[in-house]
Amino acid sequence: MNVLIVYSHPEPTSLNGAIRDYAVQRLSDAGHQVQVSDLYAMQWKAQLDAADSKARRGDAPFHPSLDSKHAFENGLQSDDIAREQDKLRWADTVILQFPLWWFSMPAILKGWIERVYAYGFAYGVGEYSDERWGDRYGEGMLAGKRAMLVVTTGGWESHYSARGINGPIDDVLFPIQHGILYYPGFDVLPPYVVYRTSRVDDGRFAAIREELGQRLDTLATTAPIAFRPQNAGDYRIPALTLREDVAPGLAGFAAHVA
Amino acid sequence: MNVLIVYSHPEPTSLNGAIRDYAVQRLSDAGHQVQVSDLYAMQWKAQLDAADSKARRGDAPFHPSLDSKHAFENGLQSDDIAREQDKLRWADTVILQFPLWWFSMPAILKGWIERVYAYGFAYGVGEYSDERWGDRYGEGMLAGKRAMLVVTTGGWESHYSARGINGPIDDVLFPIQHGILYYPGFDVLPPYVVYRTSRVDDGRFAAIREELGQRLDTLATTAPIAFRPQNAGDYRIPALTLREDVAPGLAGFAAHVA
Repeated sequence: MNVLIVYSHPEPTSLNGAIRDYAVQRLSDAGHQVQVSDLYAMQWKAQLDAADSKARRGDAPFHPSLDSKHAFENGLQSDDIAREQDKLRWADTVILQFPLWWFSMPAILKGWIERVYAYGFAYGVGEYSDERWGDRYGEGMLAGKRAMLVVTTGGWESHYSARGINGPIDDVLFPIQHGILYYPGFDVLPPYVVYRTSRVDDGRFAAIREELGQRLDTLATTAPIAFRPQNAGDYRIPALTLREDVAPGLAGFAAHVA
Repeated sequence: MNVLIVYSHPEPTSLNGAIRDYAVQRLSDAGHQVQVSDLYAMQWKAQLDAADSKARRGDAPFHPSLDSKHAFENGLQSDDIAREQDKLRWADTVILQFPLWWFSMPAILKGWIERVYAYGFAYGVGEYSDERWGDRYGEGMLAGKRAMLVVTTGGWESHYSARGINGPIDDVLFPIQHGILYYPGFDVLPPYVVYRTSRVDDGRFAAIREELGQRLDTLATTAPIAFRPQNAGDYRIPALTLREDVAPGLAGFAAHVA
């Protein structure tokens, strides 16, 4: 299959760099085609702004979504954005790899999402009516593709456990896995998380290679997280709240996993 | 009091721009000193990298936290970072104002956090032992100051309700309010959120001014979110999990609010 790794760490000799290199090798050895978007090496422009279009909508004030729509529909997106969209079209599986900084992705990767996820490409797609609320959360332009996070963090696994102070890792990652990956249609595989990165010696790195290798070998067969599709009956439209008989009594992120 | 507004929207004539202008006026009229860090106008550098130090740690590979520590301790931080830290020291209250993009803050603001939140300033502060795990989550260099989010979103309020598809707004904002603001010591006030921004006419904007005005008038007296301090007995150290008798049976983000 075709695998795109969107990689975001400033130092090639870091743990993240070693993990990235290992992943590329493992996937290539298995016969997959691999592309890497190395955002720091590409000097990826992080901030979304009016310069993302080659020509503006006349004299209208800049509007993030309307300008994105205009540029996407008219072939006026800046070249760096269009290139990344082509990589997403090409990919069967997308891996976002990053260190968890302040409980989210690095700014440079967030800026990749904001700019590449154009109106008409990743949102604002499909019919809005009494029965459907766009092609999103399980439908969309990226449906049929798989995505997975590979994340490193300095915190310990217990700090991200059900009652750990940072919050459960599944909840910390929910805005990314559900809000960024499932939203435009990806099937989202469980994340691969490396904790306590300050204590990775050779022995532990061998274990990481083994665990990650298993995950990479089974990209096509691992069961995705069972997020609930938006337009298949579980949600009232347009309120987009779960129907009373779905996950009765549950609230919060966990209610959106079947 | 001294109020710092860290503002992140690319278009001054936007709803966010109007809200920012109103907030500055309301606070100034009440006799407060106000500074605004307008990140787009400042062309804030979003990506954290080796250029954030005026001089590196010899030939060592770039390391995000060790380089930050070295630069902070030795007065080698880039001037833009040091200036923002001075504003944080000056402020009694900090407002982060931004549109919710992909369920988090814009990349440019995330990059402000990553770069301004230096090692020794916002993390890596205090003693790590069997009894304390650093000055964080309720303690730290920013303790005694207040912080509040002012957020706009295109989604409807019901989409962010307890069983709404985007997840409850308190959970969506938890990684920011708890992980970014409470972590270095801020008392975090409840957020002010404007939903369904595509439907803000003059009448609704008048209501927003009224509601936000009330919040700004009561910055000093509003009760903060009752996040649990890390080192005051609720958590086991170093596992940083809640003790069994604290919020028994609860898991997830909500367990960390008393």
